[in-house]
Amino acid sequence: MTIGIVGGTGDIGEGMAMRLSPLFDVIVGSREKEKAQVTCESGIETLKKRGQSCSLTGVSNQTAIDDADIVILAIPFRHLTGTLETLEGFEGKIVISPVNPMEKRDFFTSIPPPEGSAALLIKKLLPPSARICTAFNTIAANRWKSLDEELSYSVPVCGDDDEAKQQVMGIVNRISKLHAFDAGPLGASCLVESLTPLLLNIARYNKMKDVGIQFK
Amino acid sequence: MTIGIVGGTGDIGEGMAMRLSPLFDVIVGSREKEKAQVTCESGIETLKKRGQSCSLTGVSNQTAIDDADIVILAIPFRHLTGTLETLEGFEGKIVISPVNPMEKRDFFTSIPPPEGSAALLIKKLLPPSARICTAFNTIAANRWKSLDEELSYSVPVCGDDDEAKQQVMGIVNRISKLHAFDAGPLGASCLVESLTPLLLNIARYNKMKDVGIQFK
Repeated sequence: MTIGIVGGTGDIGEGMAMRLSPLFDVIVGSREKEKAQVTCESGIETLKKRGQSCSLTGVSNQTAIDDADIVILAIPFRHLTGTLETLEGFEGKIVISPVNPMEKRDFFTSIPPPEGSAALLIKKLLPPSARICTAFNTIAANRWKSLDEELSYSVPVCGDDDEAKQQVMGIVNRISKLHAFDAGPLGASCLVESLTPLLLNIARYNKMKDVGIQFK
Repeated sequence: MTIGIVGGTGDIGEGMAMRLSPLFDVIVGSREKEKAQVTCESGIETLKKRGQSCSLTGVSNQTAIDDADIVILAIPFRHLTGTLETLEGFEGKIVISPVNPMEKRDFFTSIPPPEGSAALLIKKLLPPSARICTAFNTIAANRWKSLDEELSYSVPVCGDDDEAKQQVMGIVNRISKLHAFDAGPLGASCLVESLTPLLLNIARYNKMKDVGIQFK
């Protein structure tokens, strides 16, 4: 199974690629293919030093869609619409959104678009056959990158296509100690997307770093 | 310190009273004082059988405000405005809101009022000197009532009055194994109030019961 990461040279995407590439074939997309290649070379090097083999290739964002079975949109919310308008080929693909529409004012807060959530906006922008799920919304970039640390977190997953959701939950459960939970249909994704500003506030007001979440 | 529970004969209030009354002086309010007295007699009996002494008295909702230092509004969101309009005497009191504005449609979802959150609506309805904090939003009624079980959960607390927030966090931290986290000012309470519909969805779609949350 090939996983494509659109925006894979960003903060979140880079750590994701390192965690996923020992488990799956990963293609990292960027607006500039060369940048993706540099990121991947550095990632391969890091994993090699740790004695881990991996499958990690730098490509353009468009190729990260075309050649993948599952596409992760590792894009900040503010660039979501602009980026998706330049890309195509999402028909029938499983598309994972870890995107959180939020802003830092005096504190972090959720600012969902008129559609209700980033996931529902993505649904509007992509062809109807794209099978969209939310996942990985609450895993901080630094945690993805800290390869020596287990990721002992819960990951709520929303989606309307049950088979796609099961596949996404299966991927989540293979990564470190992540534990996937079905959080309902895509319409419920606004509840998942408002977790990250809450966790950022908790980090800030309790002098903590990279706070995560567990359901129990 | 005396803690008054308005709506203390409801599902959440009853369990709260049982957990709090061995630690604090608790007065349980109800629209009908007699109902509160029956609830308290039953609670005292239960705690006595467990060898726990307690301070637990049934009163009217108005007395639960007048005679308390700290007031917990254990009221469902749909009755919040109606109930608060019949009550007075909140001046200078610490008022805790565990209220979550939510609805069950096909799934559970958050339906914040125009003010942005139940806590901000309460702020609008009460006198300016009331010191409002959110707390206990995510602890399920059944967990409160299961006195044999430790409550190993995180409790996010929002509020604009730092001294009140510290007092509320201190109360949280004395109950079982609850762990209070400062979740920022009252303006950030919408993020806390949307946790419960998420947890209810997770319980439903993963066949779990009374799901709680931990930050880590």
